[in-house]
Amino acid sequence: MRVDIGNALSETATPGVSVDALDRLDDAVAEAHETIAAGMANATFGYASLNLPETTSAAGIERAVADVDVDAVLTVGIGGSALGARTVTAGLGEPNHHLLDNVDPEHATRLLDSLDLSRTAVNVVSRSGTTAETLANFLVVRDAYEAAGVDWTERTVVTTGSSGPLADLADEEGLPTLSVPEGVPGRFAALSAVGLVPAALLGHDIEAVLAGAREARDGLAGSLHDCPAYAYGAVATALERRGAHTNAFMPYAEALEPFAEWFAQLWAESLGKDGQGQTPARALGATDQHSQLQLYRAGRHDKLVTLVRPRERADRAIPATDVEGLSYLGDATLGELLDAEFEATEASLAAAGQPNVRVEVDRVDAAGIGDLLFSFEAACVLAGELIGVETFTQPAVEWGKNAARGLLGGEKTAEADAVRGKREFRIE
Amino acid sequence: MRVDIGNALSETATPGVSVDALDRLDDAVAEAHETIAAGMANATFGYASLNLPETTSAAGIERAVADVDVDAVLTVGIGGSALGARTVTAGLGEPNHHLLDNVDPEHATRLLDSLDLSRTAVNVVSRSGTTAETLANFLVVRDAYEAAGVDWTERTVVTTGSSGPLADLADEEGLPTLSVPEGVPGRFAALSAVGLVPAALLGHDIEAVLAGAREARDGLAGSLHDCPAYAYGAVATALERRGAHTNAFMPYAEALEPFAEWFAQLWAESLGKDGQGQTPARALGATDQHSQLQLYRAGRHDKLVTLVRPRERADRAIPATDVEGLSYLGDATLGELLDAEFEATEASLAAAGQPNVRVEVDRVDAAGIGDLLFSFEAACVLAGELIGVETFTQPAVEWGKNAARGLLGGEKTAEADAVRGKREFRIE
Repeated sequence: MRVDIGNALSETATPGVSVDALDRLDDAVAEAHETIAAGMANATFGYASLNLPETTSAAGIERAVADVDVDAVLTVGIGGSALGARTVTAGLGEPNHHLLDNVDPEHATRLLDSLDLSRTAVNVVSRSGTTAETLANFLVVRDAYEAAGVDWTERTVVTTGSSGPLADLADEEGLPTLSVPEGVPGRFAALSAVGLVPAALLGHDIEAVLAGAREARDGLAGSLHDCPAYAYGAVATALERRGAHTNAFMPYAEALEPFAEWFAQLWAESLGKDGQGQTPARALGATDQHSQLQLYRAGRHDKLVTLVRPRERADRAIPATDVEGLSYLGDATLGELLDAEFEATEASLAAAGQPNVRVEVDRVDAAGIGDLLFSFEAACVLAGELIGVETFTQPAVEWGKNAARGLLGGEKTAEADAVRGKREFRIE
Repeated sequence: MRVDIGNALSETATPGVSVDALDRLDDAVAEAHETIAAGMANATFGYASLNLPETTSAAGIERAVADVDVDAVLTVGIGGSALGARTVTAGLGEPNHHLLDNVDPEHATRLLDSLDLSRTAVNVVSRSGTTAETLANFLVVRDAYEAAGVDWTERTVVTTGSSGPLADLADEEGLPTLSVPEGVPGRFAALSAVGLVPAALLGHDIEAVLAGAREARDGLAGSLHDCPAYAYGAVATALERRGAHTNAFMPYAEALEPFAEWFAQLWAESLGKDGQGQTPARALGATDQHSQLQLYRAGRHDKLVTLVRPRERADRAIPATDVEGLSYLGDATLGELLDAEFEATEASLAAAGQPNVRVEVDRVDAAGIGDLLFSFEAACVLAGELIGVETFTQPAVEWGKNAARGLLGGEKTAEADAVRGKREFRIE
């Protein structure tokens, strides 16, 4: 991964980071890197995530799923148990990876009706084995397989923790089972079985994903000037302190749209604490130039726009035309048009004094996705150190879980009582 | 559409709106409504958008496309020429509407290779007929049809302004042609041919969409207490003034995901001016409870969370299970689980003092989508009046268009020169 922070400097952008401030920031980066490196060496909770490129066995995953012969995969999981896996398969250009990561009955029915279940593996993922949405969906999916006369036990792969209902079930039914790695929160688990099983089931080279991640890991260094991942994390943090409370994350590649979703979880859930944390706003270039760019240029100066692109693509020529005013298109390719739009957007933000950062990988492929996943995890861990939050927990979501359980199960919870006491002010 | 603003009141939320402030706000709403109603009566530029439920002829659209016999539609358009159409077909549960609304060569190739072009209509949409991305894609699509030996002229429908290259082409080839309505910016054109042609081509009841919109239009009234659309626009504006600079827009229905994208364009491009405008952050319930909720509860108090749901769904039971700790799920349906999650999230935000608004429609169907599209357009027009911006223009995007044209076509533009003079600060 390469990063260009030129348009985040105070000479161009407001808010912006001065070159002097970068030097001071670099001392904090050096200190944070020591903490991170020590956490990695000791495999401390959370920091252990950054060891996955080494500790994950591609061969082990491939062996575990070798007997499952399918054309498609249905992942049943939510949040960190779904987004990383989808990021990987999308980056590999794989069209046959489907997800049930919501509990929308109409969507579940449409999706299940559209699949040839006899050729579709079920990839169910939950560390605890009790995630309400995931287990409800899994019960629905099993039922759909049975209704279709297809044996789900022959094509289900379980990824879970060492105990819990899913682990028990896998044991009883003799299902291929993979472990959610110890010490790794779900949103940091993409480079483990959690993120790699669907790609492996569909015959992709998951070792190449890990190799891309290893290269990024080998690039970790105690200065933002030597480490693109840290440069990104440090500059994003510095801009947040200066008022860029939103991080508009805008890859210029359709295959990176799930990556933007994955980033949004990583950034929000890791850093959104104690009244801090940038709000991720997912966007997509060039499409959102016709949607969000007006605001990004002319709205408040409270956004960092992160522009991500591959340096190479499988390109496609724009056929020549003799239509007046359009002939310039016929000399170009779609990729050249997209790159021109990328650079035009970047410069148009700079001309408006809006801070932005350019992130590039060589290609959107296995190695590129591994690189991006690892680099942004490292950037996020660094940012957590710099703003001083507990990067690896998500305590604020417990309230809602208790409320939902109380509402559904009849179990009496204070949270469910609070739901029932809602202050209404209705306009109908 | 129904709105509940109870959790946006200052007794619950920070920032919040006091009941006294609501009364003062209502005077401004009454005044703005007079401006809006006069604009509608005179069909003034922009305000004319709110007349579309009356002025659009469903029968006219259906007649124009009646001879095109297809199973799928490929829309070639971008921004307002794509998002409204996709919002409509998604709301109708239509799986065979595809979009080329980006200029990503790898995506274009994958999509075109996946379609049976002989059974796919091309729906090309550009008011000017010169939108670079749309015209480039259209040239690529025509080429793909020719390469596949399929006559594109027999299955192409053009929606454009009264003149320009697309209008000329449609004329030469005798293609079915529909007009982009006068006085209606693209992002406000969903309730015209711009948004309705794909649904019509696929045999849906587009008159029912317009009927839902008409019902919402009939509900416009000079007080926020009587008009849910204005209540939403007014409260969002009041919260923005009090620091809610982000609007996290979170429908609880997969079929409303394109609606959230459409909203994001509407809100950003209409209101993102003069250093104002909320930044839309697209989210999806319940999925993003496992991604964004930590931040929405524990991050800065700078967000309005808009929670949208249908009151009824085609539901699906969760099969019973004897697994310990999960049996409570087996008494419920997926829809009940989703509703419990909705109410739990809403209350959990309120418990954290984070402002949120509930928006409900009866169902996600033709009438419901018409209602939502019209109501949020009206809310946006009202918000534009209240914050005092030019709601219907998007001047800030011109810079980038000039830059891209200069970069691609060799035409010398000052913007392209600025791109070439980028300040670099690279970390590799």
